[in-house]
Amino acid sequence: MATVSLIEYADASPAVRAVFDDIKTTRNVPDVNNFWKALANHPDLLKRTWEATREVMRPGALDAATKEMIYVAVSIAHSCEYCIHSHTASAFNKGMTAEQYEELLAVVAMASQTNALASGMQIPVDPQFLAGGG
Amino acid sequence: MATVSLIEYADASPAVRAVFDDIKTTRNVPDVNNFWKALANHPDLLKRTWEATREVMRPGALDAATKEMIYVAVSIAHSCEYCIHSHTASAFNKGMTAEQYEELLAVVAMASQTNALASGMQIPVDPQFLAGGG
Amino acid sequence: MATVSLIEYADASPAVRAVFDDIKTTRNVPDVNNFWKALANHPDLLKRTWEATREVMRPGALDAATKEMIYVAVSIAHSCEYCIHSHTASAFNKGMTAEQYEELLAVVAMASQTNALASGMQIPVDPQFLAGGG
Amino acid sequence: MATVSLIEYADASPAVRAVFDDIKTTRNVPDVNNFWKALANHPDLLKRTWEATREVMRPGALDAATKEMIYVAVSIAHSCEYCIHSHTASAFNKGMTAEQYEELLAVVAMASQTNALASGMQIPVDPQFLAGGG
Amino acid sequence: MATVSLIEYADASPAVRAVFDDIKTTRNVPDVNNFWKALANHPDLLKRTWEATREVMRPGALDAATKEMIYVAVSIAHSCEYCIHSHTASAFNKGMTAEQYEELLAVVAMASQTNALASGMQIPVDPQFLAGGG
Amino acid sequence: MATVSLIEYADASPAVRAVFDDIKTTRNVPDVNNFWKALANHPDLLKRTWEATREVMRPGALDAATKEMIYVAVSIAHSCEYCIHSHTASAFNKGMTAEQYEELLAVVAMASQTNALASGMQIPVDPQFLAGGG
Repeated sequence: MATVSLIEYADASPAVRAVFDDIKTTRNVPDVNNFWKALANHPDLLKRTWEATREVMRPGALDAATKEMIYVAVSIAHSCEYCIHSHTASAFNKGMTAEQYEELLAVVAMASQTNALASGMQIPVDPQFLAGGG
Repeated sequence: MATVSLIEYADASPAVRAVFDDIKTTRNVPDVNNFWKALANHPDLLKRTWEATREVMRPGALDAATKEMIYVAVSIAHSCEYCIHSHTASAFNKGMTAEQYEELLAVVAMASQTNALASGMQIPVDPQFLAGGG
Repeated sequence: MATVSLIEYADASPAVRAVFDDIKTTRNVPDVNNFWKALANHPDLLKRTWEATREVMRPGALDAATKEMIYVAVSIAHSCEYCIHSHTASAFNKGMTAEQYEELLAVVAMASQTNALASGMQIPVDPQFLAGGG
Repeated sequence: MATVSLIEYADASPAVRAVFDDIKTTRNVPDVNNFWKALANHPDLLKRTWEATREVMRPGALDAATKEMIYVAVSIAHSCEYCIHSHTASAFNKGMTAEQYEELLAVVAMASQTNALASGMQIPVDPQFLAGGG
Repeated sequence: MATVSLIEYADASPAVRAVFDDIKTTRNVPDVNNFWKALANHPDLLKRTWEATREVMRPGALDAATKEMIYVAVSIAHSCEYCIHSHTASAFNKGMTAEQYEELLAVVAMASQTNALASGMQIPVDPQFLAGGG
Repeated sequence: MATVSLIEYADASPAVRAVFDDIKTTRNVPDVNNFWKALANHPDLLKRTWEATREVMRPGALDAATKEMIYVAVSIAHSCEYCIHSHTASAFNKGMTAEQYEELLAVVAMASQTNALASGMQIPVDPQFLAGGG
């Protein structure tokens, strides 16, 4: 159970309905998912979060499925149950194959393991990895 | 400074040299980076970690640059300085463009933000996101 | 289900009851919440944790609701379901308003996002931010 | 050293300069800090991040210093060196006292400790903490 | 509900059955636990993960119960519900006593607290702690 | 550089000196390490943290080296540079062998990897792992 009520379209203010409508149109879905219904308790936060999401997640130099896989990777590292479920589903909807999903999990697991080893031994960064920046 | 000494090729045991040789050949580099020199203090761990890395990171259903970008995403979430530097460099080496890097950072930032919101409100997972599994 | 049994007052040892009594009196509640019933399996840990909590959470230079909001922020970052629920409820009980809760969530989300960006690009700390310390 | 170059005002594009100017005016500072100089490599991300930050961090139902303290709490939990330094400095600039800083650290430490205990024992959430939501 | 189906022995491919058989024999259990049934969707990942687990968790310089306690500590820090439950159960099966469990939780809680304080104040590492490495 | 000044014994108040004296006597060291010098800016927090540390870290059902290894495991998961260095050094001082250190790192790495897999697939906990608690 959430810390807030989930606001349905029928009970939403005009400002919230406008965001819900944009989500439904953009994603071609009949209803918004619970994340947005919860955020609707905070209309400013809802609007800002949706507009940033719409902008960030649209296909660009990275395609939509790759963006979702990166999203899943971060959500696993943060142990966010809701986000793991919703973005794994989104990744499949946007074309991630079963083989890609296996490789996604394998890379996330490998990175988690070597992150622990590199932090555990506090290994100094090689000079060649620092060449690009300021 | 690391918690262990960095072992150079000249000082390495035959078992460690064999792994170092495989890394250098596989990656076509003149020397291994510090991660492997640190792991060389633990030859079994070195061998196991390298063999898994070689297997997981080879291009498959996901290409090499995409795998590195996922690696970077996880490393950011874990705040692993060494891994962020080394895998960002690897991603560029394997073809990540500046535009893709911007989008990678934007997706990681967006995921971090919505992970916090979804966990913060403890939003229940929508039934449609649970349909696929067991 | 917890990894330990929850110990009710009726079944508690005198040492545990003494802590439970102090919690009930300090908080003016009829029963302790599950956190303390679980900790009661470890009486020394129970006593030490309660005494530190009582001391740290009492109003001081920061008022009680502000302390609870900080607590919630940390609990979100650690993805601690129990703590998010219990301290969000406590924050509301101690006077957090709905507007403050929206702003709390917005700040936590913003911090999570910029934490990822700052770590992701490994940005060096500006000298003026380092001036105060030793 | 960052993964990107830090872009100074003199070298910035008009779009980046417009954001830098707004930061300098809003905060009344002679130059932007490194976070923004790094983000300037990604003008869209710079603009979106600054606009959200300006909106979220302005005093509202929570005052500016309280918002900075919450920011610090999250940054500690994520082990973000840059953000800990920059937002601790900001909190002091916006009026956080030494006594409040001590209490901030004490609450973050206490929350970290009890987060571990609650997660470690997987304590079920009490029904009364779940009453408010949907 | 998992993001994947749980694969039972009766429905498994020969390659998966071979791993399941080795798990059952090594651990002397009638069936594998859900972790392996989920991983069985990804036979390569299943095989690699099991072989590494079998190798790493066998008693060596550290006994089996100590290894499980370290596993629990990491799982708590990552807020991994499944792993906390499964490895706490394993630790008890391998001989962890109730007194040791209390001390394990107390050390994890203390470390979580002082991690926050050390990161929060960005305390510089004492030179004597850096003496051993390279 | 820390967010606070490091307070040396010569400049410390009597209350802080009393804690420093107890640390030096208990640990048989000529001076306290930086963690305590930083905490000395907050005398109440210093006293409470030291007293809890002294109590928790004394040998009991777990020996001193095992406790330090658990401490290191948590510190790696939280990416706490100071704590990784200080507690790895302490573990060696209290008898951790090089072989045990290798196994510690291997277990932490394995746990980090399987934590990611179990969270990533949101695997349901097996009923037999839930049998013990309340």
